[in-house]
Amino acid sequence: MQDSPHVLDRNSLLTARATRLACRSGRLTEQTSGLAPGYAQANLVVLPRGLAGDFLLFCQRNPKPCPLLDVTEPGSAVPCRAAPESDLRTDLPRYRVWRDGRLVEELTDLNSVWQNDFVSFVIGCSFTFEAALLRAAVPVRHIELGLNVPMYRTNIACQRAGVFHGPLVVSMRPLKPADVVRAVQITSRYPAVHGAPVHIGLPEQIGIRDLTQPDFGDPVPIAADELPVFWACGVTPQAVAMAARPPLMITHSPGCMFVTDLRDEELAVG
Amino acid sequence: MQDSPHVLDRNSLLTARATRLACRSGRLTEQTSGLAPGYAQANLVVLPRGLAGDFLLFCQRNPKPCPLLDVTEPGSAVPCRAAPESDLRTDLPRYRVWRDGRLVEELTDLNSVWQNDFVSFVIGCSFTFEAALLRAAVPVRHIELGLNVPMYRTNIACQRAGVFHGPLVVSMRPLKPADVVRAVQITSRYPAVHGAPVHIGLPEQIGIRDLTQPDFGDPVPIAADELPVFWACGVTPQAVAMAARPPLMITHSPGCMFVTDLRDEELAVG
Repeated sequence: MQDSPHVLDRNSLLTARATRLACRSGRLTEQTSGLAPGYAQANLVVLPRGLAGDFLLFCQRNPKPCPLLDVTEPGSAVPCRAAPESDLRTDLPRYRVWRDGRLVEELTDLNSVWQNDFVSFVIGCSFTFEAALLRAAVPVRHIELGLNVPMYRTNIACQRAGVFHGPLVVSMRPLKPADVVRAVQITSRYPAVHGAPVHIGLPEQIGIRDLTQPDFGDPVPIAADELPVFWACGVTPQAVAMAARPPLMITHSPGCMFVTDLRDEELAVG
Repeated sequence: MQDSPHVLDRNSLLTARATRLACRSGRLTEQTSGLAPGYAQANLVVLPRGLAGDFLLFCQRNPKPCPLLDVTEPGSAVPCRAAPESDLRTDLPRYRVWRDGRLVEELTDLNSVWQNDFVSFVIGCSFTFEAALLRAAVPVRHIELGLNVPMYRTNIACQRAGVFHGPLVVSMRPLKPADVVRAVQITSRYPAVHGAPVHIGLPEQIGIRDLTQPDFGDPVPIAADELPVFWACGVTPQAVAMAARPPLMITHSPGCMFVTDLRDEELAVG
């Protein structure tokens, strides 16, 4: 008996491969948070070859928001290091197509828009360090509340590379002071997934006026005995797409990540 | 021609041994900050043998304020690991004698009060991690201003051990948010000298009402774009002496440290 394409037991998606196949078959079209525990999930950016060189340099110059886990050969949809049996055209739940800086389409696969010169960038995602925080009993508010992490455009400009420029986007997690210390220690071990925080405690210093109004994701409450802690965020390329307006750029949809075969702990240093 | 005992060129004290000999000869009776660069300086606690067991347990239970570098044999004034050619009775600039929790005397050597059953505790000091911060271009306010670090009694109780109990004392350094992150990373490498901060940003949460009124040391200004960052402090045993009122306890005088033969970098992990 085959699985119905419309019935998906999320608890059954225990491996990266099972999760990707659920995407490929059309059974999984929603967020991947919590799926395939222990496997690193990733942000995706896809660009025509003519823009890929600039974007590669952008990632090199902005490693905190854009830590590269893998880059494909032009035309190939297979990230050989991150998941050699995967297909980036089908193995994410949901994609966004940006033309001239505008979001024009959301798709559940890229078959209709794929070009032979596409280069794909697989970029580390904070899910990996969030798992490490939870293992260390550091609470993560948006996970506790079943929400998306709140994300904010900052007044910190990314380092420009060719056509690509734009603001650093940060994610925010409120923590008690002692947990701020632990969170810096823990996330410092994971430079491949944004690493240590970029800012603590004074949002106005980085151009964030109202924490209750995130630019992406959901607001979360901050208690009086907590500090807002900010990490560089893999949504930065989407803000860059809006700012730099490349003719064509494809990304994952927020929260709908690419699940790699890399284990979270493979991405730790030390 | 011999050096005059009253003329001391502080710049000439480049080694731990030279600094200790200047103390021993009576030429150095003031603070040791900046002397013998690269050598770890230390807090001192001296107790009669009957109290030493409790204090050893106190240090084991409170490793952040009381990281032990060395403990002498009863009656010996030689810390064999920290500085095997030294004499703790003479090799510090200045000592404090506490009786029943009261500071009763300040001495430049312990010859007049030494007992054959004294046990000495050599406890790591933040000078080591401050040197590491400065090497990483993280500014340290009180050093820039030529002041003592501001220190505060907190509402955090140390873990009791036998007769010893009292509040955790913390030192405070104001830092910009990005430097807070670096400071956590850097000081985490030095658990033997208080390690990572114990608190960031919300002094009232740990019972500090007014940062301009430190309990020990000097106040320092905090800019609007800075957070106060708090580390466990080696002055904690002096607050413990005041709280627990042991019949006799000897400590160094604030800032007048024991200069060990240990190199700062020997105390780093990783």
